[in-house]
Amino acid sequence: MARVVTFGEIMMRLATPNFLRFVQTRSFDVTYAGAEANVAVSLANFGLEASFVTKLPKNEFGIAVLRYLRQYNVDTSHIIFGEGRLGVYFLETGYSQRPSKVIYDRANSAFALSSPEEYDWDRILNNANWFHFTGITPALGDNLVQACLDALKKAKEKGIIVSCDLNYRAKLWSQEKAREVMSQLVKYVDVLFANEEDAEKVFGIKADESNVVEGKLSLKGYEQVCRRLKERFGFKKVAISLRESIVANLNGWSGVLLDGDDFYSAKQYTVHIVDRVGAGDSFSAGIIYGLLNGMKPEETLEFAVAASCLKHTIVGDFNEVTVDEVKSLMKGSGSGRVVR
Amino acid sequence: MARVVTFGEIMMRLATPNFLRFVQTRSFDVTYAGAEANVAVSLANFGLEASFVTKLPKNEFGIAVLRYLRQYNVDTSHIIFGEGRLGVYFLETGYSQRPSKVIYDRANSAFALSSPEEYDWDRILNNANWFHFTGITPALGDNLVQACLDALKKAKEKGIIVSCDLNYRAKLWSQEKAREVMSQLVKYVDVLFANEEDAEKVFGIKADESNVVEGKLSLKGYEQVCRRLKERFGFKKVAISLRESIVANLNGWSGVLLDGDDFYSAKQYTVHIVDRVGAGDSFSAGIIYGLLNGMKPEETLEFAVAASCLKHTIVGDFNEVTVDEVKSLMKGSGSGRVVR
Amino acid sequence: MARVVTFGEIMMRLATPNFLRFVQTRSFDVTYAGAEANVAVSLANFGLEASFVTKLPKNEFGIAVLRYLRQYNVDTSHIIFGEGRLGVYFLETGYSQRPSKVIYDRANSAFALSSPEEYDWDRILNNANWFHFTGITPALGDNLVQACLDALKKAKEKGIIVSCDLNYRAKLWSQEKAREVMSQLVKYVDVLFANEEDAEKVFGIKADESNVVEGKLSLKGYEQVCRRLKERFGFKKVAISLRESIVANLNGWSGVLLDGDDFYSAKQYTVHIVDRVGAGDSFSAGIIYGLLNGMKPEETLEFAVAASCLKHTIVGDFNEVTVDEVKSLMKGSGSGRVVR
Amino acid sequence: MARVVTFGEIMMRLATPNFLRFVQTRSFDVTYAGAEANVAVSLANFGLEASFVTKLPKNEFGIAVLRYLRQYNVDTSHIIFGEGRLGVYFLETGYSQRPSKVIYDRANSAFALSSPEEYDWDRILNNANWFHFTGITPALGDNLVQACLDALKKAKEKGIIVSCDLNYRAKLWSQEKAREVMSQLVKYVDVLFANEEDAEKVFGIKADESNVVEGKLSLKGYEQVCRRLKERFGFKKVAISLRESIVANLNGWSGVLLDGDDFYSAKQYTVHIVDRVGAGDSFSAGIIYGLLNGMKPEETLEFAVAASCLKHTIVGDFNEVTVDEVKSLMKGSGSGRVVR
Amino acid sequence: MARVVTFGEIMMRLATPNFLRFVQTRSFDVTYAGAEANVAVSLANFGLEASFVTKLPKNEFGIAVLRYLRQYNVDTSHIIFGEGRLGVYFLETGYSQRPSKVIYDRANSAFALSSPEEYDWDRILNNANWFHFTGITPALGDNLVQACLDALKKAKEKGIIVSCDLNYRAKLWSQEKAREVMSQLVKYVDVLFANEEDAEKVFGIKADESNVVEGKLSLKGYEQVCRRLKERFGFKKVAISLRESIVANLNGWSGVLLDGDDFYSAKQYTVHIVDRVGAGDSFSAGIIYGLLNGMKPEETLEFAVAASCLKHTIVGDFNEVTVDEVKSLMKGSGSGRVVR
Amino acid sequence: MARVVTFGEIMMRLATPNFLRFVQTRSFDVTYAGAEANVAVSLANFGLEASFVTKLPKNEFGIAVLRYLRQYNVDTSHIIFGEGRLGVYFLETGYSQRPSKVIYDRANSAFALSSPEEYDWDRILNNANWFHFTGITPALGDNLVQACLDALKKAKEKGIIVSCDLNYRAKLWSQEKAREVMSQLVKYVDVLFANEEDAEKVFGIKADESNVVEGKLSLKGYEQVCRRLKERFGFKKVAISLRESIVANLNGWSGVLLDGDDFYSAKQYTVHIVDRVGAGDSFSAGIIYGLLNGMKPEETLEFAVAASCLKHTIVGDFNEVTVDEVKSLMKGSGSGRVVR
Repeated sequence: MARVVTFGEIMMRLATPNFLRFVQTRSFDVTYAGAEANVAVSLANFGLEASFVTKLPKNEFGIAVLRYLRQYNVDTSHIIFGEGRLGVYFLETGYSQRPSKVIYDRANSAFALSSPEEYDWDRILNNANWFHFTGITPALGDNLVQACLDALKKAKEKGIIVSCDLNYRAKLWSQEKAREVMSQLVKYVDVLFANEEDAEKVFGIKADESNVVEGKLSLKGYEQVCRRLKERFGFKKVAISLRESIVANLNGWSGVLLDGDDFYSAKQYTVHIVDRVGAGDSFSAGIIYGLLNGMKPEETLEFAVAASCLKHTIVGDFNEVTVDEVKSLMKGSGSGRVVR
Repeated sequence: MARVVTFGEIMMRLATPNFLRFVQTRSFDVTYAGAEANVAVSLANFGLEASFVTKLPKNEFGIAVLRYLRQYNVDTSHIIFGEGRLGVYFLETGYSQRPSKVIYDRANSAFALSSPEEYDWDRILNNANWFHFTGITPALGDNLVQACLDALKKAKEKGIIVSCDLNYRAKLWSQEKAREVMSQLVKYVDVLFANEEDAEKVFGIKADESNVVEGKLSLKGYEQVCRRLKERFGFKKVAISLRESIVANLNGWSGVLLDGDDFYSAKQYTVHIVDRVGAGDSFSAGIIYGLLNGMKPEETLEFAVAASCLKHTIVGDFNEVTVDEVKSLMKGSGSGRVVR
Repeated sequence: MARVVTFGEIMMRLATPNFLRFVQTRSFDVTYAGAEANVAVSLANFGLEASFVTKLPKNEFGIAVLRYLRQYNVDTSHIIFGEGRLGVYFLETGYSQRPSKVIYDRANSAFALSSPEEYDWDRILNNANWFHFTGITPALGDNLVQACLDALKKAKEKGIIVSCDLNYRAKLWSQEKAREVMSQLVKYVDVLFANEEDAEKVFGIKADESNVVEGKLSLKGYEQVCRRLKERFGFKKVAISLRESIVANLNGWSGVLLDGDDFYSAKQYTVHIVDRVGAGDSFSAGIIYGLLNGMKPEETLEFAVAASCLKHTIVGDFNEVTVDEVKSLMKGSGSGRVVR
Repeated sequence: MARVVTFGEIMMRLATPNFLRFVQTRSFDVTYAGAEANVAVSLANFGLEASFVTKLPKNEFGIAVLRYLRQYNVDTSHIIFGEGRLGVYFLETGYSQRPSKVIYDRANSAFALSSPEEYDWDRILNNANWFHFTGITPALGDNLVQACLDALKKAKEKGIIVSCDLNYRAKLWSQEKAREVMSQLVKYVDVLFANEEDAEKVFGIKADESNVVEGKLSLKGYEQVCRRLKERFGFKKVAISLRESIVANLNGWSGVLLDGDDFYSAKQYTVHIVDRVGAGDSFSAGIIYGLLNGMKPEETLEFAVAASCLKHTIVGDFNEVTVDEVKSLMKGSGSGRVVR
Repeated sequence: MARVVTFGEIMMRLATPNFLRFVQTRSFDVTYAGAEANVAVSLANFGLEASFVTKLPKNEFGIAVLRYLRQYNVDTSHIIFGEGRLGVYFLETGYSQRPSKVIYDRANSAFALSSPEEYDWDRILNNANWFHFTGITPALGDNLVQACLDALKKAKEKGIIVSCDLNYRAKLWSQEKAREVMSQLVKYVDVLFANEEDAEKVFGIKADESNVVEGKLSLKGYEQVCRRLKERFGFKKVAISLRESIVANLNGWSGVLLDGDDFYSAKQYTVHIVDRVGAGDSFSAGIIYGLLNGMKPEETLEFAVAASCLKHTIVGDFNEVTVDEVKSLMKGSGSGRVVR
Repeated sequence: MARVVTFGEIMMRLATPNFLRFVQTRSFDVTYAGAEANVAVSLANFGLEASFVTKLPKNEFGIAVLRYLRQYNVDTSHIIFGEGRLGVYFLETGYSQRPSKVIYDRANSAFALSSPEEYDWDRILNNANWFHFTGITPALGDNLVQACLDALKKAKEKGIIVSCDLNYRAKLWSQEKAREVMSQLVKYVDVLFANEEDAEKVFGIKADESNVVEGKLSLKGYEQVCRRLKERFGFKKVAISLRESIVANLNGWSGVLLDGDDFYSAKQYTVHIVDRVGAGDSFSAGIIYGLLNGMKPEETLEFAVAASCLKHTIVGDFNEVTVDEVKSLMKGSGSGRVVR
């Protein structure tokens, strides 16, 4: 069984219930989530050995996170504990023309304050087949840029496949800083996850005007972005999830994959949304799973899109679906008939 | 006022709230439901005298069921009590591409363990105008096949109209066993409720290939199925509810009726779904109500489709609507303007 | 900062949760609401000084209302307290083909029992720029017709702009009585809010047959209604919100404005609905805000339509949105992308 | 099986959850309750035939009440429907030194507006063994005084036992009015339920000073009150429930009974309280049950005290216990060991 | 770190919220629990390596149990999956004089249907220091008597300490059958957990009359029971938890321990109860922990009583406390001051 | 009407529901609270003009706090907005022997980061009669020590009465630092609120050994602490609230007051606790209210103890009671009879 290691921050997620606004709510639903943890849980739910690496505070909430992850059989043995708080993110789920809102309160978390030496990558990456991180981790501070670099070098040394989701967050760092850091880090990356916004914001890469239709990229445009990313950094594969926002609770959802020189685009689903946070991470997990299980590129892409389509129907960041359920959707059972 | 008797099992229904999956939930909403009880309640809500016959366990949950039914003014005086458990069914409500899931835990219920002699059909069917059961009841065991036979014979003896919903459940019996048993039972049936899957699975009856469009039956195809059912078993009427699953929470909904030689098809509604379990039963109840109240065939069918359309918007298996509300929808008020 | 005064009744709103029907529910969600209070809160949320005038009972629920309003920074200093109850309205939220239901239980409220002398309009309207009421207030009794008249005369005396929403409620008074009273009151009105039903029911004003398409008014028809209202009563402006009910939870939403001789119609939104009660009031508030802030007529109308579009996504009667959020929607961000 | 008829008002009960105060709550738990309905339900739960007579509004809440009562197998066939609202009572459950608060909003209910002729007592009391009402019913208006008188005369005519709970409510009528009316009505009463406050407030009957200890009546004092009530009005039996309030959630609970010339006092329970509303009614029901089932006076009293002791542990006004559970407590199983 | 293995059934626990009765509730809180799982979780929370052995159904609820256990870091690697259902137990939490009620619905569970050969005790008990089971496991069927015997023999072979909690359940087997089976099994037991009822019911062992005070055993009596158990079966240690039921939500709680020839009794706590189910199991876990960590007998007993005292304040069967929290209570911090 | 100004931090309070532990909960109840805000709300509820001064973040949660305070009619016009987060405190409510737990996550709040110059004390204290702060404010940083000093000097200049609650928090600063800072600040204080722990920890002041009984201070001991505090710092009045923790949900509650040379002690209440957080603040508010309303010392103390006794029965930090309710308790109505 393949072993995947992901590295990043996990936060307390506090979501208002029943479409209440932040200023209205008298309660929050609490789960725990973060981009890289989301990927690890998704993979563990698919049956892989997934190890999530982070630093947690030494208090009840550190324990709460540990418990929360353990139920999914995620390997938590490389998580370290120490000073600092648990980051929090607040979620107000949108509806129709009212967008969802996320307020981050993550500064000074135990993870953000952790130092590179605390992570023993030689031991952590032992027997690993894949290492995954996102642009959020290095955005949290230079200490974490260094930690990423340490991990990436060790991964290369050990011949481990590396993937990265650009995940640009303007609240965490500037485009200039992101470009400088990420350009350095992606040198070690085999599989890149991105969207066209990230590609432009972080690397200034975009499609030609001729490939833009009504303000949106055409499939050709997405292909161009993929190819330019590959050209510039030499990625083996580039995968982009495609969201068409109709209204907050109704979206089109698909994705594209550049595998070597071959470009693939997937079926588009019209998704009625329960909870869309974490959908991108479930797409990444789908691609990783497909590749590690020897699926062909088109199958891998369709698997990732179907998996992340289902994510939109599930409460919380984590994609609580099995491989069988994803495959059932791929085979066309998307009409929601009752399973008895 | 017409008196209808239905015979079957009622279970505890445990549904996850807020679209949570089984593995996520920390609570269940509890109601009580079962195909034949659903029909009885629907009819009682329409103002008929509806009597539900079953066997319940002698414990608090038997009492709970009794209370639950009584609030709808369903006649519970023929319910018997004894050894055995209350069957349970678990419901995970689907959304978008994620289908609803039902897990049955109904073995060894007081009803399943009941013996034919416990039901005094002569007394039960006294003054009754209609007897209704579904394929689930005989699927629970040979004792219940016998109980059904006893009831059917007595019904015929008393000149009571008999209806049956095929309701094939693969988890309860094989197609072979179902065919053998149901072929025997439907001899006594005047009005058959089915869908094209049931007709094929139970009786091997299907439409010609020429009537299948994109994998689905055309109206012509449904008509053919109805006529073949009638030909084979001599039903006076055959009614089929038609569901077009777009996604789990958005369906097309309609129905057809073969009345003697005349075939009718109803308006189709696009329904946004709150809870679709029990919709088929509310369709059956609509047909029974229409026929017992002297509606014409087309009106009966439209009544049944409108009634069951509304069921999709109501929490629980039971169709909590009045005749006035159904008629209001039939007259075209389906746009959901506020009633003040 | 402009000061707006609104005058009317505020009630306890008891809404069933989770789409439960009245007969099913074991709990109610409680907020407080009323047409004119809704307008005041909307304006306060937009940053205006909004004063709500009413009479409340001298008990815990009077205090509860006071608290509820205060959180929005609505000026409650002109609210009076005395004998009588707090009116209640019960709400069963519809879905798909099942309409929402409202049951009013408002008779004998402290407000309905209040006498005209209790309102010191000279003091209340001091420094006010705008006075708003709806047809509900005079419908509650002749004492309140007189109170409205007193307020209107004082408003005219002080050169305050006056607006009125016809808001015809058949349960409160007959069309004849409404016509007699409203004809007298609208003489003082500068800006009229109405819909074509109200215009016909209260004033017998409707569009020519030629402007009716498939039973609905065309834009031309709405223009005609606006112009005829203006001709008859001399309003400076007439604004009508337009709802196209697809199903209870999915509506088209737009509006028109006749400003002097110029007629404007706005963009139409397809809204997925969380809670549509109070949408008309939020439309009125949008028009008032636009006009008081020197927006041009077309901008004012688009602001009002966008503001009230957002209202449909918010729990409760009150429109919990800011000017920035409305403007963001006007600029086209209606696709509901996450705001991080 | 004995048949008991009770006559009075049933209201919607809106209770704040989780010890929230009225001004804090954002939801209410809804049940339906009223003194005489509480007695009827208690008796139906004990297995008697209990008929509740009232008038309900012709709307969804009238139906909701009907359904609510039916689940307990209370006979609702004599309930009439018509104009008027459903009365409401709001409950804020107290704790420790903070008392519970009840706000009544019951004026102009369908019941309060009903006229004496609407009740066909000859038919209603057919085959009845017992008729019960409380002082609340006549307090609602002279029409209901007359209705009570009609019922009482018919009851006497038919040889039916009559009981009355004084239940003085200062918000409904003055002591003078209560004395005048009740003096007239209790002439027909065989069994009186009261407490020493009621006896003093309604009839000016109290114990001698020498029987008051630390501001409270001694047992001797209660006996004196009972005897004086009997002397004045000729009751066959007088029963008084005794509450010793320690704090809002911890009370002593007992009762006394004067049966002919014999005075009995019961064991005292220290009750930790879940919901104490309706405890007095469950005491009355216990006495009625005991007497109708031929229990001896002391057993009847102990049954009533044990039954109403259990009521304190049950959510809602209704006493959801069986005869077996009451007897089990009487036999000493009050320590709350788990029943498996 | 010591490794403890426990063997038994785990069920779905469905508890009514807010002190509602079974017949009232419209929802259940769901957790998963069982005597031996409770002990395993308690020990894992204390930091030991705890392995729980059972058989689960191959469906979503099997997965749900697995997840539920994993969060506590219980070793689930020896759990097997197969045919059968998940047992259910329903809980109605008592209050004051109303006792808690438990309804079991556990027949035909995957565990109850499992055969002895499915458990590979040699592998399961590898490196184990302690094996624990309760009388419930053999009560489920002869197949499980055999499985227990297999485990016990293997444990003895490997020199593993064995403990057993008599846990007599009259609903599962007769006293005769229990005596026959348990007499055979306890031969392998080193540490016995019991209460005086169990000892009498299963083995007919009780204290002399002279040691019974007001129907209860005196400390002398408990000592006698312990000593007689030891004499008869040669246990190394016998521990009994002592509950004094005042009312359902207020109990005295303590325990005694016979260690070799030395008898110890612990401090008694007066506990206000949130949830008492599982308290006995948490007492067993406390004793096991103390003994495995080299605590002295009196300390072990005080640890077990303090741990299980805290259990009463925690929702669910599992004892969610740490060793530090137990020790803090042992040191006297039982007054509940806020920990900031 | 007297005007009181309080100065401090207000946080989001996230409390687990239903006695769940932090590691168990899937939701938090959200309110907003802080020592000085609690005092301001208490006083506003008593009818005084209370102004709360703080700095809030410029985001939805800043608005949420503003709204939350406004409903109580607290003057928020001196609250400033700027960079920084909103502090959070997590609450796990204890029960029986399990203590409540508070986890603070308040570092880097907008308030903690505010600078002294941002507060315009001359304007803020205009027309004020009383200024109140607690030891928490200066503990948050030297910037806030300076802000306190500025406020205190201006208060003295304006002849405003100053009160301070020592409120020592070991997590925020050391005893040495607290002593150094508080010694400086209390020079300006007229009325000191403390408990004997604070007095010892902050100032090293304690009672003689002879006044300690069973590890607790006797009344004589409390008097000694009061007198020594007065002697050292020249306070006009010293008030101490006295809590006797029986278990977490059952406490004794009282207080003492040294007014000039006269020492008073109050009645002790045994309180069953709903929520004890904020009780100390409600005691301070009671003293301030009594003194500002010309109550005599003993009446002031009894008022403060009764008010804060009631606080224990109310959800949230804020004391949601009126002066009438406090006085009613003072007059002896502590037995919790229903108020109808």
